[in-house]
Amino acid sequence: MMTKKIAVIGASGYTGAELIRVGIGHPFLNIKHLIANSNAGKTIEEVFPGFQSFNLPRLESINSFDPSSVDLIFCALPHTTSQKLIKKIFGTTKIVDLSADFRLQNPSDYEKWYGNRHLAPEVQAKATYGLTEFYRQEIQSSMLVACTGCNAASGLFPLLPLIEADIIDPENIILDLKVGVSGAGRVAKQSNIFAELSEGCQPYNPVWHRHLAEFDQELNKHSKANVKVTFTPHLLPLNRGILTTIYAEGDPDKVHKTLSLRYQDEPFIHVLPMETIVSTRHVRGSNLVKIAVFPDRKGNRCKIFSTLDNLVKGSSGQAIQNANLMLGLDEKVGLDLVPIFP
Amino acid sequence: MMTKKIAVIGASGYTGAELIRVGIGHPFLNIKHLIANSNAGKTIEEVFPGFQSFNLPRLESINSFDPSSVDLIFCALPHTTSQKLIKKIFGTTKIVDLSADFRLQNPSDYEKWYGNRHLAPEVQAKATYGLTEFYRQEIQSSMLVACTGCNAASGLFPLLPLIEADIIDPENIILDLKVGVSGAGRVAKQSNIFAELSEGCQPYNPVWHRHLAEFDQELNKHSKANVKVTFTPHLLPLNRGILTTIYAEGDPDKVHKTLSLRYQDEPFIHVLPMETIVSTRHVRGSNLVKIAVFPDRKGNRCKIFSTLDNLVKGSSGQAIQNANLMLGLDEKVGLDLVPIFP
Amino acid sequence: MMTKKIAVIGASGYTGAELIRVGIGHPFLNIKHLIANSNAGKTIEEVFPGFQSFNLPRLESINSFDPSSVDLIFCALPHTTSQKLIKKIFGTTKIVDLSADFRLQNPSDYEKWYGNRHLAPEVQAKATYGLTEFYRQEIQSSMLVACTGCNAASGLFPLLPLIEADIIDPENIILDLKVGVSGAGRVAKQSNIFAELSEGCQPYNPVWHRHLAEFDQELNKHSKANVKVTFTPHLLPLNRGILTTIYAEGDPDKVHKTLSLRYQDEPFIHVLPMETIVSTRHVRGSNLVKIAVFPDRKGNRCKIFSTLDNLVKGSSGQAIQNANLMLGLDEKVGLDLVPIFP
Amino acid sequence: MMTKKIAVIGASGYTGAELIRVGIGHPFLNIKHLIANSNAGKTIEEVFPGFQSFNLPRLESINSFDPSSVDLIFCALPHTTSQKLIKKIFGTTKIVDLSADFRLQNPSDYEKWYGNRHLAPEVQAKATYGLTEFYRQEIQSSMLVACTGCNAASGLFPLLPLIEADIIDPENIILDLKVGVSGAGRVAKQSNIFAELSEGCQPYNPVWHRHLAEFDQELNKHSKANVKVTFTPHLLPLNRGILTTIYAEGDPDKVHKTLSLRYQDEPFIHVLPMETIVSTRHVRGSNLVKIAVFPDRKGNRCKIFSTLDNLVKGSSGQAIQNANLMLGLDEKVGLDLVPIFP
Repeated sequence: MMTKKIAVIGASGYTGAELIRVGIGHPFLNIKHLIANSNAGKTIEEVFPGFQSFNLPRLESINSFDPSSVDLIFCALPHTTSQKLIKKIFGTTKIVDLSADFRLQNPSDYEKWYGNRHLAPEVQAKATYGLTEFYRQEIQSSMLVACTGCNAASGLFPLLPLIEADIIDPENIILDLKVGVSGAGRVAKQSNIFAELSEGCQPYNPVWHRHLAEFDQELNKHSKANVKVTFTPHLLPLNRGILTTIYAEGDPDKVHKTLSLRYQDEPFIHVLPMETIVSTRHVRGSNLVKIAVFPDRKGNRCKIFSTLDNLVKGSSGQAIQNANLMLGLDEKVGLDLVPIFP
Repeated sequence: MMTKKIAVIGASGYTGAELIRVGIGHPFLNIKHLIANSNAGKTIEEVFPGFQSFNLPRLESINSFDPSSVDLIFCALPHTTSQKLIKKIFGTTKIVDLSADFRLQNPSDYEKWYGNRHLAPEVQAKATYGLTEFYRQEIQSSMLVACTGCNAASGLFPLLPLIEADIIDPENIILDLKVGVSGAGRVAKQSNIFAELSEGCQPYNPVWHRHLAEFDQELNKHSKANVKVTFTPHLLPLNRGILTTIYAEGDPDKVHKTLSLRYQDEPFIHVLPMETIVSTRHVRGSNLVKIAVFPDRKGNRCKIFSTLDNLVKGSSGQAIQNANLMLGLDEKVGLDLVPIFP
Repeated sequence: MMTKKIAVIGASGYTGAELIRVGIGHPFLNIKHLIANSNAGKTIEEVFPGFQSFNLPRLESINSFDPSSVDLIFCALPHTTSQKLIKKIFGTTKIVDLSADFRLQNPSDYEKWYGNRHLAPEVQAKATYGLTEFYRQEIQSSMLVACTGCNAASGLFPLLPLIEADIIDPENIILDLKVGVSGAGRVAKQSNIFAELSEGCQPYNPVWHRHLAEFDQELNKHSKANVKVTFTPHLLPLNRGILTTIYAEGDPDKVHKTLSLRYQDEPFIHVLPMETIVSTRHVRGSNLVKIAVFPDRKGNRCKIFSTLDNLVKGSSGQAIQNANLMLGLDEKVGLDLVPIFP
Repeated sequence: MMTKKIAVIGASGYTGAELIRVGIGHPFLNIKHLIANSNAGKTIEEVFPGFQSFNLPRLESINSFDPSSVDLIFCALPHTTSQKLIKKIFGTTKIVDLSADFRLQNPSDYEKWYGNRHLAPEVQAKATYGLTEFYRQEIQSSMLVACTGCNAASGLFPLLPLIEADIIDPENIILDLKVGVSGAGRVAKQSNIFAELSEGCQPYNPVWHRHLAEFDQELNKHSKANVKVTFTPHLLPLNRGILTTIYAEGDPDKVHKTLSLRYQDEPFIHVLPMETIVSTRHVRGSNLVKIAVFPDRKGNRCKIFSTLDNLVKGSSGQAIQNANLMLGLDEKVGLDLVPIFP
């Protein structure tokens, strides 16, 4: 099989680094370009010293980069920035975008949730939502895939099959999410400082978190009812990992059976035996999602736990899975990452 | 005011240590005896080196200890062990018990939740539940106060006033609790090892956690309805702190107003302005409970966050607050602990 | 005893917060002003929510503040900033400075180590170095005390008596220091982000750390030889605490005896019995220094471990100890802080 | 190339888990047996849930295991236990031992440092010390390789070439080591509990740590002088990683040049450019050693920093590197692990 040339734009952030880490181990991806405007000219080991010795290209500016020289671009820029760039280069080569910019299919939703007008609605119209296990065919032939947000992915995997099968009450779905701090990015702001995040726990954006927009879009696409989940993210003092605890009204056995059936052939989504404890530690560094179902003591209520590594299946691993499809590769290749513990 | 002589039984565990820490700073408590059978004969700095230089008594065995020589005993033993001891010494002096042994007023509840028959039902009948802000008068004249479990305390403070006022739906109350690892005690078992708990998050006892028994007892004592909450604790990689996220059906403003009114004169329970982010870091080391109310985007649903330090208001601080009442002291004395951050 | 009015300038940083925490519990200090230019107008709980409910003044700008209205000012500003302010207000009231600006008695040393010319050499000439246990008398009558740097304090306490007694080889002293991240301040920069500091260890400034200047000044003041220590700080993933491991040539018993004698009457400096393990956890939150001596297997070499809480005895606790002396109070008052563990 | 059948004995400890993690990704190793007496009969996901879905054999007891059925055995048992087993099976197949039992070539050294008489001195005589980069040829033809201790490895890589070249003073070598807690194993004891290890730092075994025996053996094998290093390990609140800070008398440039030359062709040992900061985060999860040299401000003294992941190059990665050699495979195969950050 021929090697595919790729570029990573936004190579000095955490999702960029994770694209590189997984990309290095991928047998058919060849990292030709690492783009990072603010660090252009530096070696990658100056921004991520762990990558010294892996023969990676020097960081370069977007200005000197020709998109058509690669088979696929991973765009790991902050939202808005991503939009501006992709508006310019769309069509020249395949693109997997890790930002929030092309996830919402209705541009007015984007404006509502992100506060500014979408700059490339015509590109948005051609983007595919990157929840691989639900949009495989579309992704295969897409020129632009917008990866699912890490929090949204963690909730959608357990919820979508249940909503489709109509076996939980769409009126009373609660997602209580716990997420490690790498989700906040490599951003120098006071709230990201070690001492502000260690030894404690707190909610953030508890009313209007933007990933609600993704929940609304995807759950309603798969339901006849109007599904509006309740969602509360909490920040934990750890680097990687999301644990989402879902409270839903429905028969726990039916829920477990529906999820087990839906995902029985999926390589990365594992539904555990009924009442198995799951931890973010069980997926760290891997592209896996693990889902556990417990009955509540209240007869018809379930607790569903879903865990993934926000930097892998929640972003960069998912991105590579989508890229594999877009490039005609085996979807799983390069993603047989074993969880690292401790 | 005269100094009161106290003893701490179970002085080599974490709640024991916290009784000592707060007790040292208490102007009217005089720590006369530190009892720890397995470490009897050692100095306290051999088991907690931080207490060197505070002139504390040597650890001794229970056998050599005369309960009537002190004004009050703090009993910080594991459940069952506590029961056996208190059965023997009940009546000789005042006792504050930090274990689960005397919290459940119906002995058959104890048997159901803890798996063994209660050994001292006649003592149980005379015990007072130690949720200070709700049982002040009973505590003042009690010979045995059973402190509220840390998880239960964290949920009962926000819920009890709402249940009493009947302004939330008693059928649909969900408590998603996040707790630091000191709650698991100073117990040498694999699941308590650093590498098993760091860098991750997981639920524990997600169906039948024993603190449900306390929720059932207290909520139903204050409600006409039959209240059965849904409750899921999660373990976090931090030492101290509980954050409980409560999902309830009701009007957020009414909820906030009811809680604010109920606690306006309580020195240790603070209801924050509507929509204020709260963190376990804001109460670390203090006897405070902080409660925040947020509306959900779904009209009639609230998110209520409640945080306390499991070793202070969740156990040892609460115990001293109760002891103050039982000894005729100002309830607040010795408990003006300022949160420590970072 | 009359209450003393104080002001904290730089109230929104970590040493500012610790001055407030310890100040609240101090029976004779009355916090009248909290100055923080960038946050002027805010309440203290907006920048440190843990301080809600302690009746503290609102944050104000330096412009509206009259230094002569208080008995003592704690200045917890970054270096250079501190210098500019103190140049203006020196003489109006007593000042305890926590920055590096007035520690080096020779202004040319300041220029050499900090890279810019000292702006107030005439004030520097009147400043007293704040290592309380060595400069008590001078501090009592000083108008400006410059607190010892946290790293320097951790090394000077064990070294000074040994240098004075001339019982270790001044040519071969190595200090390997491990320090928690709060020492880097509440500064929003990439190297302070949680994910850059958690789960790992690294040296910083391993050749020319500025605290070397303090070591040079103080060790040579107390020695006939020219003492130039080797010093390497390392960053640890924890909030508070410094552990300094010192390697020195000399007789371990003599070293232990000299230190024990020197500090036997000091309330805050504890020399542990020979070969006692010491941890930063044993001093967390307290004003204590603990020193342990071990022989090396090589006959005439010692390992000396010194630990303190960088935010207490390393800065804000030390500052209050100095303030007590300057204000004619008992040096120990307000500083009987019990270590908090876990 | 033919696949090699291997067994892991001691599969439920941390080094066992890491052998499995790296073994899964190794293209020529086939994990046929996982032995763990105390957990025999369980699936591997019952003891390490992250390994679910990797088609691993069930845990079995040693009694049912035929050593000659595999090409190589990894023995990841505690010391003494390892000795007893290997005494019985030595000669039946190739063995890589991760314990301390066969590292010391002089059995009386073993007795001196480990406190009990060696049970298999005749096997010891045939064992090879597993510091791959120094004993390649011997390892290739050995039936029993004893992997270097993680702490010792971290110090020997930088020191051996300098001792061989005789460019540092053998009388004055100090190693100050900082190590994550996984080094203490998956052992349920109080000192391993999260709350005892988090948020702090402390030395352990500061006088007579057993890895001194390895330093003595190896350094003296390569030196004409009698080399006795000073060595102090410290425990850090992190899972993986060792940072060793070495203080040595010698010319920094010569030291850097000697190390650079010695390791220029070694795939896993990287000597960084002069004065490059190194962190344990730069090697986490990889088989790399990174070495940095800094001059001290004292002319002829160097600071050498050496970092590795104690579970990879410090034990299980090293073990697989040795196994590759013993099995006639490319030494590097399966070990191209990219550091994981954050």
